[in-house]
Amino acid sequence: MTTGLPAKLKPAARVTGQRQDVWSIINEAAAASPKQPIVNMGQGFFGYNPPNFILNAAKAALDKVDCNQYSPTKGRPRLKKAIADAYAPFWGRPLNPDTEVTITTGANEGMLSAFMAFIEPGDEVILFEPFFDQYISNIEMPGSKIVYVPLHPPKDGPTTTSSASNWAIDFDELEKAITPKTKMIVLNTPHNPVGKVFSKEELQKIGDLCVKHEIIILSDEVYDRLYYVPFTRVATLSPEIERLTITVGSAGKNFYATGWRVGWLMGPAHLIQYVSAAHTRICYSSVSPLQEACAAGFEQAEAEGFWDETVRDMRAKIARFVAGGYFVMVNMQKVQVPADYPFPPHVASRPRDFKLAWFMIQEIGVAAIPPTEFYTDANAWIGADYMRFAVCKEDDVLEAAKERLRGLKKYIKA
Amino acid sequence: MTTGLPAKLKPAARVTGQRQDVWSIINEAAAASPKQPIVNMGQGFFGYNPPNFILNAAKAALDKVDCNQYSPTKGRPRLKKAIADAYAPFWGRPLNPDTEVTITTGANEGMLSAFMAFIEPGDEVILFEPFFDQYISNIEMPGSKIVYVPLHPPKDGPTTTSSASNWAIDFDELEKAITPKTKMIVLNTPHNPVGKVFSKEELQKIGDLCVKHEIIILSDEVYDRLYYVPFTRVATLSPEIERLTITVGSAGKNFYATGWRVGWLMGPAHLIQYVSAAHTRICYSSVSPLQEACAAGFEQAEAEGFWDETVRDMRAKIARFVAGGYFVMVNMQKVQVPADYPFPPHVASRPRDFKLAWFMIQEIGVAAIPPTEFYTDANAWIGADYMRFAVCKEDDVLEAAKERLRGLKKYIKA
Repeated sequence: MTTGLPAKLKPAARVTGQRQDVWSIINEAAAASPKQPIVNMGQGFFGYNPPNFILNAAKAALDKVDCNQYSPTKGRPRLKKAIADAYAPFWGRPLNPDTEVTITTGANEGMLSAFMAFIEPGDEVILFEPFFDQYISNIEMPGSKIVYVPLHPPKDGPTTTSSASNWAIDFDELEKAITPKTKMIVLNTPHNPVGKVFSKEELQKIGDLCVKHEIIILSDEVYDRLYYVPFTRVATLSPEIERLTITVGSAGKNFYATGWRVGWLMGPAHLIQYVSAAHTRICYSSVSPLQEACAAGFEQAEAEGFWDETVRDMRAKIARFVAGGYFVMVNMQKVQVPADYPFPPHVASRPRDFKLAWFMIQEIGVAAIPPTEFYTDANAWIGADYMRFAVCKEDDVLEAAKERLRGLKKYIKA
Repeated sequence: MTTGLPAKLKPAARVTGQRQDVWSIINEAAAASPKQPIVNMGQGFFGYNPPNFILNAAKAALDKVDCNQYSPTKGRPRLKKAIADAYAPFWGRPLNPDTEVTITTGANEGMLSAFMAFIEPGDEVILFEPFFDQYISNIEMPGSKIVYVPLHPPKDGPTTTSSASNWAIDFDELEKAITPKTKMIVLNTPHNPVGKVFSKEELQKIGDLCVKHEIIILSDEVYDRLYYVPFTRVATLSPEIERLTITVGSAGKNFYATGWRVGWLMGPAHLIQYVSAAHTRICYSSVSPLQEACAAGFEQAEAEGFWDETVRDMRAKIARFVAGGYFVMVNMQKVQVPADYPFPPHVASRPRDFKLAWFMIQEIGVAAIPPTEFYTDANAWIGADYMRFAVCKEDDVLEAAKERLRGLKKYIKA
């Protein structure tokens, strides 16, 4: 890629040497597939709009001068208050909007801000594997070493449809991964790509370990309104755990607006103040009129019945497609790709799930995400028989997907 | 600030140890001033809305599903094309929207992306002083050393109103600042806070030095529609200079929407590809519906007569206030603050201009920005007699400012 560039112009290591990311591979293959229109269940963007009461609030904000100009770097007061009010019932106490909430440019930049706030080069961050791939560059940018701890898949994966909660933590493995350099641990519940909702017992054990070793917990809970089993927020388990916990939220996921880039982090003032400081240095401030719209979203969601509707709709979509979560991990061990099937080099060099994804896009016109992208190379075999389907799509898309997936029948091994 | 935090939870050096920034000091003092309503000519946000054709495009985008979901990480194709088309006349050739333009989350995150793309720890970046303060954390985040080169103020500053172009570069000083570790230089024209528009001759000399030493030029031209003297874009001077140049643009500044967080970088593919890669790792993608609105902005601005109107309006505002640029630097050497005037510690510890700014907010109710924030401590004396006024405000605000500033007369030294 750097051919022809003199040595003095060469890019920094942090942006080179990475293979093409899974999103580009799948989206580009889907766009070029002969089976158009493609049924795209790959990336987890929504196939429908935010609700009208939020869209109307966005349009109203666009008419106000102050809503089109810089917001305070920590976020607009109205949105911080709306979030504090919306989450206070889960915390069981009032949250201070000025010190315990900070707005970021999407959850992604929020997580980067958290790592930038606390990680010095050489510090270690514990991450469960599989992991959302974007975490990796966020953790590595401030110079951290990532220590991976596996989530063990259900042993009956190839033969049975089982709950995502069966992906298990080995707590001995987790404790062995902790060293004096461990500064943070990343949780993700509900989990992407597995769909696992961590149980209260699991979170309590993780939290206790973090209290014992003084480890900051960064809990990515962006799918916090899209679960349908009991959902526990680790920050609410005890004051000792809360003192160490930063919780990540996303208006994009909450309000079906992944392109709005409004996220937030919540936590004790002694952590949030440094997240804010890092965010100011990265993005300065976040998008003003859509912050205002998200404030209206939180203010009115309960009265509009929006949260209930979200859970009901998502449950129906999941039922329509197959038992699972916001993302559905399907074991495809039995699907046999013809031995002589031609793959381009950037797919041929990857594990079996990439070849399966390519094959499905070309032959049946359904795009899904190969999950080995969410594993280190050493553990990629664990995910190589799975495929991740995002179910946050219009019902006719889900029906089309089911119909097309029946076309895989002739490739099923006996 | 870290009192009570155990050592293991301590924040990273990159977010600590900095004094309170000038924007917070001035905005908080303005909010608490006894002279309400304050006339705020401090921060350079606009006192009016984007034009209706752009606001309407934003509202229309909010009704489309794909405009509310993730955009491609490099930006929406329509916006990249609109920018390529809008700038092609200045470049004198078509620009490739897919390889020579990339969209960022405001110009600020765009500049951070450029530094993250090319700077390894220990590399050096040359920056003219005074400088826009946000550059500093952007350059330091990837581990660069900043080498400062002064812009020398006009010698007749205290007695005469002179053109911002008289702030001068000493080219011997500039060449001496170059070392084998110099990786990038930052230009800013029209300049914030000075208002200087770099001449073609100055830019040619800087460009020639960069070609000779192979230094990447990051040219912040976010005020590129708000000049009223001949404006030269350094990238257009020669193919040799263009090969090294990344140009920074801002929809916030172009379209009176500083809260929209839409910016872009333009340059040769061999540089832009790495800026895109860094942006993907920082923010993933940028705000979708407002990208769409900005695309409409560029598509229609010419036909709507918007660019001409921008220059005409700004010129009238400048004439209304005083001769100068988008920002006006006023020399206040003759204003004498009473010797026993009480200042709070965070102002008392700063140079004379901070005290002047505080005094004006308290006594006459006008907020402006003390420019020593844009200097290193060693050179702060150069800016200590000046005050920066932003003139991008409604006309009645400018009239009120003039009226109130007459209240300083009684403090003028003979």
